[in-house]
Amino acid sequence: MPRALIIGVGDGLSASLARKLRQEGYDLALAARDTGKLGALAAETGASLHAADAADPAAVAALFAAVGKLEVLVYNPSYRVRGPIAELDPEEVRRTLEVTAFGGFLAVREAARQMLPRGRGTILLTGASAGVKGFPESAPFAMGKFALRGLAQSAARELHPKGIHVAHIVIDGGIRSARRPETAEAALLDPDAIAEAYWQLIRQPRSAWSAELELRPWVEPF
Amino acid sequence: MPRALIIGVGDGLSASLARKLRQEGYDLALAARDTGKLGALAAETGASLHAADAADPAAVAALFAAVGKLEVLVYNPSYRVRGPIAELDPEEVRRTLEVTAFGGFLAVREAARQMLPRGRGTILLTGASAGVKGFPESAPFAMGKFALRGLAQSAARELHPKGIHVAHIVIDGGIRSARRPETAEAALLDPDAIAEAYWQLIRQPRSAWSAELELRPWVEPF
Amino acid sequence: MPRALIIGVGDGLSASLARKLRQEGYDLALAARDTGKLGALAAETGASLHAADAADPAAVAALFAAVGKLEVLVYNPSYRVRGPIAELDPEEVRRTLEVTAFGGFLAVREAARQMLPRGRGTILLTGASAGVKGFPESAPFAMGKFALRGLAQSAARELHPKGIHVAHIVIDGGIRSARRPETAEAALLDPDAIAEAYWQLIRQPRSAWSAELELRPWVEPF
Amino acid sequence: MPRALIIGVGDGLSASLARKLRQEGYDLALAARDTGKLGALAAETGASLHAADAADPAAVAALFAAVGKLEVLVYNPSYRVRGPIAELDPEEVRRTLEVTAFGGFLAVREAARQMLPRGRGTILLTGASAGVKGFPESAPFAMGKFALRGLAQSAARELHPKGIHVAHIVIDGGIRSARRPETAEAALLDPDAIAEAYWQLIRQPRSAWSAELELRPWVEPF
Repeated sequence: MPRALIIGVGDGLSASLARKLRQEGYDLALAARDTGKLGALAAETGASLHAADAADPAAVAALFAAVGKLEVLVYNPSYRVRGPIAELDPEEVRRTLEVTAFGGFLAVREAARQMLPRGRGTILLTGASAGVKGFPESAPFAMGKFALRGLAQSAARELHPKGIHVAHIVIDGGIRSARRPETAEAALLDPDAIAEAYWQLIRQPRSAWSAELELRPWVEPF
Repeated sequence: MPRALIIGVGDGLSASLARKLRQEGYDLALAARDTGKLGALAAETGASLHAADAADPAAVAALFAAVGKLEVLVYNPSYRVRGPIAELDPEEVRRTLEVTAFGGFLAVREAARQMLPRGRGTILLTGASAGVKGFPESAPFAMGKFALRGLAQSAARELHPKGIHVAHIVIDGGIRSARRPETAEAALLDPDAIAEAYWQLIRQPRSAWSAELELRPWVEPF
Repeated sequence: MPRALIIGVGDGLSASLARKLRQEGYDLALAARDTGKLGALAAETGASLHAADAADPAAVAALFAAVGKLEVLVYNPSYRVRGPIAELDPEEVRRTLEVTAFGGFLAVREAARQMLPRGRGTILLTGASAGVKGFPESAPFAMGKFALRGLAQSAARELHPKGIHVAHIVIDGGIRSARRPETAEAALLDPDAIAEAYWQLIRQPRSAWSAELELRPWVEPF
Repeated sequence: MPRALIIGVGDGLSASLARKLRQEGYDLALAARDTGKLGALAAETGASLHAADAADPAAVAALFAAVGKLEVLVYNPSYRVRGPIAELDPEEVRRTLEVTAFGGFLAVREAARQMLPRGRGTILLTGASAGVKGFPESAPFAMGKFALRGLAQSAARELHPKGIHVAHIVIDGGIRSARRPETAEAALLDPDAIAEAYWQLIRQPRSAWSAELELRPWVEPF
């Protein structure tokens, strides 16, 4: 049974990804800083739960050691602080870079170590429109998501010829969830639709790999 | 039975697309400048054949009138001439623009006319790496494929909110075919894999549409 | 006295360019489809006037033969038609591609022929934001300006190592002119400021060339 | 006398920038982690010297307090570590992000605080080709320079309408210096030519600002 690790669980997207991968026959491991609210999802999908700070090198190393050999890694975590650049707290900006990008590096490094000897595997990094366009009063998130995209490009160029598929997904819009009002529903991405797109990236044969995929709702301006 | 029209048939990609769409239950129409060699594919897929110059407005209008209501349009044609820019024949450059880009516009226009009243449909435009990076001694192809990408972006921004999905596919590499030597096979895209990726674009629900998709072989430098 | 040819004269930008190049000691040639309104500018700058359709290969060849050896070429012409893609007139779209992009190719080809034997020269192609982003209901202009950018990239990659500087300028906003209302002045580009930026591209030493330059007013959203 | 601060001094580029700005009448402040080798440049340009770790928030705040009101800020620092992603030391990657990107944020924040009340100023961020394309076996530098570009885009969109010009310069190639062999000289950027391009960005009137500028040698493939 192939194994998949999803780092950064807690919103609608990761739950949809967990259900989709389970349905496709994957043994699942879910990692989050706080696993307290994940009991129901773990029970539903048979996933193991792992509490870990994605930006802590030792915690990430321990996480991968605990989970074991992977076929699929999904990295979701992000952190953001908004505001005029002159008023931002540097420690919040540092945290944004660490969770959004540095943690992505740690996960890719560990996944590469496990996947390289077998010459196969899929690494999916969840980006945002902020990773391709820097919006005003959102410098930290722009820095973090741009850095994640730089990581994805470099890793894809290095790991594709070694048989490991790396893809960066640009989620260009909000994701539908229980917390959002129904009125704007058309402007939100359905997390099940996103999960299906991730699954199709995992299924791509290596003769035709995508290194980046943008997804946005039909009514979203871009 | 939903209907699909593939314009620009003759190589491995369009044959794979025809087979895939047929398998998924589409009624097929195939258009090419010269349909002489398409008898076997038409017989295999039950497709109707249409001879038409994709860059001729009257011929394209007649083609769409003959085919009737569409769910899916795929535009593949391209033409290219290479060489130092000082030595190129202007008429060859004009032909490159007309087949690669102007014909794409004609097809998108006709498809939009048919699809807009129903508020649904998928338009797929086959691009190339030359559409995102202008290579030396290949100015005409760069012009044509850049123009096709500009068309795709404009059409996506106009037609997505009207329910019509427009996507531009960047084929970044050569396509495997009977004409290519086996020795370089790893560096070529499998046309069946490309056709599968096109099919997944057609299947995307409108809450998570991709406007562009890059595909390249795992060993292709990029 | 070095010679410069400006193709596409008639608005504020080309007048500012003509004055700037004259002031920097260039012998000027101005080409436009209709030179009827250019008498005053020609008198002021000592320029020769040339009536030519920029999209006509024979007219462009004759223009370059008449003007003789060049140090600098500027290509400005564009044509546009707007509207829903389903309602556009194909002949207007063809004209957009021909004036905006094919004419650029013709000019670059002739300039390359003259400049290559001397191993120096500057070719500046005037683009627009439409060349980097396809806007809705403006497919033809997107196609034309994308194609011009593809031409610029291909020509830069081919001609830079031969000593000829090719640059594409993205004018991202409206240009101030007598025809525009003063109220929106802050949101418009000053044509003298653009001309100065073109001049700085011409002055760049070949050890640090720019192949693309974006210019926009400080208040312009982007 | 307007004041300029250059952070990250030590190579040919910053020396050329210092001389250029001095020649244009600026009062100069030079900051580096180690100012031990900067005595001659300070003496030549009349600059004040400031030892500061660009990635340390307290040190950067103290630096800006010591320097006082600025018209121009240039941020140059970068750090890099190369290697297969599976073998990189996480602490080296963290340092790369902190020096290359987080320090840029700290400097932009302090400069914005000083410049916003006056509604003018120029902030120039020195990028690299690694900031627009992630190269293999160079993930950390890609992350850092991508993040710097995200910072530049976000800051430009926020600060341009407030009168502060932010530009990101993509240095696409090596810079000529005493340490490099003469044989490859044609493939290197002349630091004086880069400094001139920075100066032209500073001079741009706000009606035609560039938010990004690429510079590369004529013989550099791109």
